[in-house]
Amino acid sequence: MLITQTTNNLNSLQLYNFAGGVGLLPESVIREAQQAVLNIPDCQISALVVNHRSQLCRDILDETEQNLRTLLSIPENYHVLFLQGGASLQFAMMPMNLCTKKNNAVDYMTTGYWSNKAVKEAEILSKNVNIIWSGKDQHFTRMPNASEYQINPDAAYVHYCSCETVEGLQFTGYPDTGKVPLLCDMSSEFLTKPFDINNYGLVYAHAQKNIGAAGVTIVIIRDDLLQDIPHDVPEILDYRSHVKMGSIYNTPPIFAIYIVLLVTRWLLNDMGGLHNMNVQNQAKAALLYQAIDDSEDFYHGHAHKNSRSIINVVFSLPSSDLEKQFIKEAETLGMIGLDGHRSLGGIRASLYNPMPIEGSLKLQKFMQDFQIRNQ
Amino acid sequence: MLITQTTNNLNSLQLYNFAGGVGLLPESVIREAQQAVLNIPDCQISALVVNHRSQLCRDILDETEQNLRTLLSIPENYHVLFLQGGASLQFAMMPMNLCTKKNNAVDYMTTGYWSNKAVKEAEILSKNVNIIWSGKDQHFTRMPNASEYQINPDAAYVHYCSCETVEGLQFTGYPDTGKVPLLCDMSSEFLTKPFDINNYGLVYAHAQKNIGAAGVTIVIIRDDLLQDIPHDVPEILDYRSHVKMGSIYNTPPIFAIYIVLLVTRWLLNDMGGLHNMNVQNQAKAALLYQAIDDSEDFYHGHAHKNSRSIINVVFSLPSSDLEKQFIKEAETLGMIGLDGHRSLGGIRASLYNPMPIEGSLKLQKFMQDFQIRNQ
Repeated sequence: MLITQTTNNLNSLQLYNFAGGVGLLPESVIREAQQAVLNIPDCQISALVVNHRSQLCRDILDETEQNLRTLLSIPENYHVLFLQGGASLQFAMMPMNLCTKKNNAVDYMTTGYWSNKAVKEAEILSKNVNIIWSGKDQHFTRMPNASEYQINPDAAYVHYCSCETVEGLQFTGYPDTGKVPLLCDMSSEFLTKPFDINNYGLVYAHAQKNIGAAGVTIVIIRDDLLQDIPHDVPEILDYRSHVKMGSIYNTPPIFAIYIVLLVTRWLLNDMGGLHNMNVQNQAKAALLYQAIDDSEDFYHGHAHKNSRSIINVVFSLPSSDLEKQFIKEAETLGMIGLDGHRSLGGIRASLYNPMPIEGSLKLQKFMQDFQIRNQ
Repeated sequence: MLITQTTNNLNSLQLYNFAGGVGLLPESVIREAQQAVLNIPDCQISALVVNHRSQLCRDILDETEQNLRTLLSIPENYHVLFLQGGASLQFAMMPMNLCTKKNNAVDYMTTGYWSNKAVKEAEILSKNVNIIWSGKDQHFTRMPNASEYQINPDAAYVHYCSCETVEGLQFTGYPDTGKVPLLCDMSSEFLTKPFDINNYGLVYAHAQKNIGAAGVTIVIIRDDLLQDIPHDVPEILDYRSHVKMGSIYNTPPIFAIYIVLLVTRWLLNDMGGLHNMNVQNQAKAALLYQAIDDSEDFYHGHAHKNSRSIINVVFSLPSSDLEKQFIKEAETLGMIGLDGHRSLGGIRASLYNPMPIEGSLKLQKFMQDFQIRNQ
């Protein structure tokens, strides 16, 4: 038995988990998931062993899809897919499927760690990847303005990341790419606020931030993008296979999808939809940015103010020793996961949907108190 | 709420689930999984939200790997990986990684539905796929003898499926391919009996039959096969990425892996290892084949006797009406999932590890009784 205790004696439901990689789940979803491990209500079967060819499996996927369509007003000409492999597999599937032979030029924006990973994968698969804007020289501290990049009208698509998890950057609008399909990694912000899918050709998000538990990735793709997929794409990596089979091309990760079903029900029934969710998320972020702005640079925010993410609040302290102390003291108070991404260091407070405003308030007070004691 | 009741009023733990696609789980694993949804014992965190960069995640993967190494005596020169995408993604990853440029000829055996799917995917990715044996003309009723196929000594690898889930066929030994690496889809039989990994270059199995719940696939690959992977393989699909990062190249499906951990503990501690497991599995299959052999062809076994699978017992009845009645009556008695694969029809009784011998005994008695009443 190698597993050891990692934190304090609080029950997991009383902890505030600010981790960036894997978020938390609403308490009601945890309770319902627990029940479903034994028996899906009224179904007499564990959600862990639902057969993928059963009507029950189809019903789970259909209701989850319908909930997403309701939450985001997704029209008929978009397909909603439940895939495996995380956002990282999308980094490969997008160029494999959508770098069509007649036009394999693709445009990418590099705004941080994750959009850069998407670029690296595209460069393995296409010799014509154009970086239309990069924030690297500015250490990924801001998102671009529309005047700073130019879309290649012949590009097969434009790819960007709307919300950089590592650096805590977020677009306020979206890049207007005209007729060129816009592809977006929304992993960090998906379902945190409303957005208009009609501006996009393809949107994807892995589940483990706002949607559920690791193991499933949501892909929303406009129907016309399926027309020109090359014939040498393996079936399992071809979007058309999954569209044709309603995400049951092979055995889907049914339990992970069931968690998404529970989360979408929670968003619809308990939280009152994405507009309300956004109001709460804005308030949560405002509390922490207030602590940063009032600190006279004791807390140094990484992002320029107009690129600040409401989902991942990233900042540093005057020394790495103080940062370690900050993280340690926060942990003893039940606030965990505050260490920054290994590529950047510092502090990161991720405020995914299930983080209650009490968590943000508690962290704000701790920040203020910590500053007074250590300034 | 679209989900409706699918079966009778028995609790899921009292049902005998003979489904072929997704197997069942031991009752103790279900109970432990339920607990882990709330809190991993001694860890104060839900297994659904474990951060992939935490020591806890590393510990879960390490113990699961170590349990597999113990169960199968896997030596140091083999890597054990936990991937997403099912066996179907392996159908693509094998040729992408192992059809090396200097030698892209590959040998495949077509022995049923699933090995044929592997061939189709390989044919998209390689122009030099040789079918060294096919059972198609014999309607996939038997596995080949060693004298019936010839290995191309220049092939990059030989691929076969050791246990065909749909047709209920199983190899008794393994194809001796000499110096040519042998690749095997073991999804249906992995962990049902001991085998010598040293005969293989690569072995893979999705979890949802004997190892756990859908959402994770185990790949065991010999170190020397990593040497010649082409440079144009996307990182996420390159075995080396996952070896290098110990299966945490990106966020792994942690909850699905945690279920594998629980199942491997159950095999080691409760079942006494794979030799004992095999003895039980042989006995379970023998009960059903006895009912078939004693029936004077009322139950017609699909497989030739020397190719019979101890995991998936496939047979037909004199008419499809009788088959429907058989399935319906069995369901009312708590034996579910007995319908054959949609490509073959008939009856399929899958006897994955967690099926207790009582389930097999109950089905045997039902078969005998049904025959008397309907002959």
